[in-house]
Amino acid sequence: MSDCVTNDFVHQLDRQYVFHSWSSQGKLDPLVIAGGKGCRMWDYAGKEYLDFSSQLVNTNIGHQHPKVVAAIQAQAETLATVAPAHANLARGEAAKRILERAPGPFSKVFFTNAGADANENAMRMARSFTGRDKILSAYRSYHGNTGAAIVATGDPRRIPNEFARGHAHFFNPYLYRSDFWAVDETQECERALQHLQRVIECEGPGSIAAILLETIPGTAGVLVPPKDYLQGVRKLADQYGILLILDEVMAGFGRTGRWFAFEHFAVEPDLVVFAKGVNSGYVPTGGVIVSDAICRHFDDHMFFGGLTYSGHPLAMASIVATLDAMRDEGVVENADRVGNGVLAKGLQQLAADHAVIGEVRGLGVFHALELVSDRRSRAPLPAAEVAKLKSAMLAKGLLPFVIENRLHIVPPCIVSEAEVEQGLAILDEVLGASC
Amino acid sequence: MSDCVTNDFVHQLDRQYVFHSWSSQGKLDPLVIAGGKGCRMWDYAGKEYLDFSSQLVNTNIGHQHPKVVAAIQAQAETLATVAPAHANLARGEAAKRILERAPGPFSKVFFTNAGADANENAMRMARSFTGRDKILSAYRSYHGNTGAAIVATGDPRRIPNEFARGHAHFFNPYLYRSDFWAVDETQECERALQHLQRVIECEGPGSIAAILLETIPGTAGVLVPPKDYLQGVRKLADQYGILLILDEVMAGFGRTGRWFAFEHFAVEPDLVVFAKGVNSGYVPTGGVIVSDAICRHFDDHMFFGGLTYSGHPLAMASIVATLDAMRDEGVVENADRVGNGVLAKGLQQLAADHAVIGEVRGLGVFHALELVSDRRSRAPLPAAEVAKLKSAMLAKGLLPFVIENRLHIVPPCIVSEAEVEQGLAILDEVLGASC
Repeated sequence: MSDCVTNDFVHQLDRQYVFHSWSSQGKLDPLVIAGGKGCRMWDYAGKEYLDFSSQLVNTNIGHQHPKVVAAIQAQAETLATVAPAHANLARGEAAKRILERAPGPFSKVFFTNAGADANENAMRMARSFTGRDKILSAYRSYHGNTGAAIVATGDPRRIPNEFARGHAHFFNPYLYRSDFWAVDETQECERALQHLQRVIECEGPGSIAAILLETIPGTAGVLVPPKDYLQGVRKLADQYGILLILDEVMAGFGRTGRWFAFEHFAVEPDLVVFAKGVNSGYVPTGGVIVSDAICRHFDDHMFFGGLTYSGHPLAMASIVATLDAMRDEGVVENADRVGNGVLAKGLQQLAADHAVIGEVRGLGVFHALELVSDRRSRAPLPAAEVAKLKSAMLAKGLLPFVIENRLHIVPPCIVSEAEVEQGLAILDEVLGASC
Repeated sequence: MSDCVTNDFVHQLDRQYVFHSWSSQGKLDPLVIAGGKGCRMWDYAGKEYLDFSSQLVNTNIGHQHPKVVAAIQAQAETLATVAPAHANLARGEAAKRILERAPGPFSKVFFTNAGADANENAMRMARSFTGRDKILSAYRSYHGNTGAAIVATGDPRRIPNEFARGHAHFFNPYLYRSDFWAVDETQECERALQHLQRVIECEGPGSIAAILLETIPGTAGVLVPPKDYLQGVRKLADQYGILLILDEVMAGFGRTGRWFAFEHFAVEPDLVVFAKGVNSGYVPTGGVIVSDAICRHFDDHMFFGGLTYSGHPLAMASIVATLDAMRDEGVVENADRVGNGVLAKGLQQLAADHAVIGEVRGLGVFHALELVSDRRSRAPLPAAEVAKLKSAMLAKGLLPFVIENRLHIVPPCIVSEAEVEQGLAILDEVLGASC
């Protein structure tokens, strides 16, 4: 690599050779990032950013945690890779730590490369366990970008993975833009559950393997569900012998101020999908936490799924170090204290001061601001206006997470009160200048 | 982690907490692996294995290559993770090196976490580029374990990824167990192409986005195609405006004694799918090499795919170090010389000496032995017999790669002549004792 690296050099290299996610390639202007530490990142010119994005909401422990870096380096020294069929110390230790933190009747962990294939495998388990093929999931959801490889595969491992009737979607609760003409949270909850029951009845309960839900839909807007909604879903699932899969890829491992977001709602899923926060994405990994009952099923039933890097040693070592450091350093407690304290209060104050904020919602360091051009009609702020705000934040050294008309406020779980205040001050300034 | 680790401890930890790929979980007895170096691995009791599996045919550069380990450690020190939207030095350098080695009109690389999601995204690109939705692939193939996550997703990114008519399969050439009643390679090639043409006609050429093929189907049995087959497929694809995707996850990056297996067949694909050998799996990664024409299309068309760890810095740094070391140390040339020399000749000699070997086939360090109970009928050796052979090899310190009735001989590309001879001697002994 070049000894004298500049922003221009890296930018040019990227534009020449790298094909990007979710974009037209022609007009991309990626921000150059050279390094990071804690809640800060910087480029090659020394410009610093306060990271309120956690990249893609994954660096819960912050950038470059020394213990996690050291664990990756030590595992690289010992054994970088091993086939999933073999037993490996780091994998067992990682699974044990995840299970210690997951409240519920869970007994094993299946590891994947990230959230998408973790969802794939949770759905596969549910289909095999129930002998049913449909999965119900929410319109306002994101569960990953895969959807074809095993169907393209020709070998017989394709056959048990071909689910003819596939997927159906329902509307999940979102009071601010209710699909149920609801006026308060109680009504939104009741109507959303009634709607889900109608979808179950109309799809045919006997055909439905699982209901797959993000505990708190993230990309869709940090949609904290009404407090009784998930218990209601659990009850419907039980009534019809349907499994409940909770996708905690974004919400899990400290983001909401608990190890798992479902702890806020007193509900027990059958399968928990995780990725991101489990090791802050220092090495690609994800997985499924599997209930006792489902594990027992697979003791004498073939599991028709797998992947080369299931339980990859570098990823496993980084999970062990991350979860130990998060416990030892009170990272989850920090997310709770700072997120539900100075951050939540500060965002409410911003909303009081700036009419462009239609709603503030969230838990811990997992918040969203709904930007609107008119509070009464709740019309989303136009994309060009949002883009201007984003540029202004970057110019002032704040790295935001922007989706559609929303600003997701998702700093690392280690964020300090002073850092939150610094970020809020920039937001206040930028919103004040524009609106 | 425990300071005084034993095989029993790791085995027990694995059995208690880890859910395994492609298995019933009840009767698993995983081999414990503690470390490795070059073509060797060992357990905690000091028992050594000569790795003729390359784990899952991925450690092309061998275990614990010091330059790759050092690169991972250095990148971990600088920046372990970054969002894919940002520009990052290691990502640009990795893409550049891959493109330098890929002969053909390629201009960009899209990075994924592994082979499955690389295939997913290659199919996605082909569907978008052609505006067609079907993918043809071979019955004897393996393209990965995913197939549902984007369909379960409810947000609007689902919609451009819902391909109604989906996937159709055809028979690819495999002379030893011909599906075309062919008696020689020329006939197998002609008939396989005629069959493919019939499938294209019957599925409707205007509905087919791509033909997806492993250049040399790997898991299906190292099925080296007749020399003119891929050129024939390319011609059919061109005739109907269909793209050709070659899956080089297992065959690429040195395995056959070339950087890419398609170099043996004088054919140019539109998209190349890779993983495994690109960094020997030291960090989970994979990707798609994209042709100029397809890159130009996406300059002003949205690409509806993406993932959190696309172009993950640790993976990128390991690619850079792996590809530089493979070039500097002549690793691809070694796979050619040793694989097509002492290994190929030694396997032919084994076949001459042991009637249980029905056929030897392969290229470089990518070979398969077809084990049969009867050479005339070609009846596959029963599973119980194969399992006995596998146990005997392990007992003698050879780590084999066994699928169905086949023994895949797939050592790292760095394997020495002496190591090949040692492995062949164990095979000779084990096959001699049993048959």
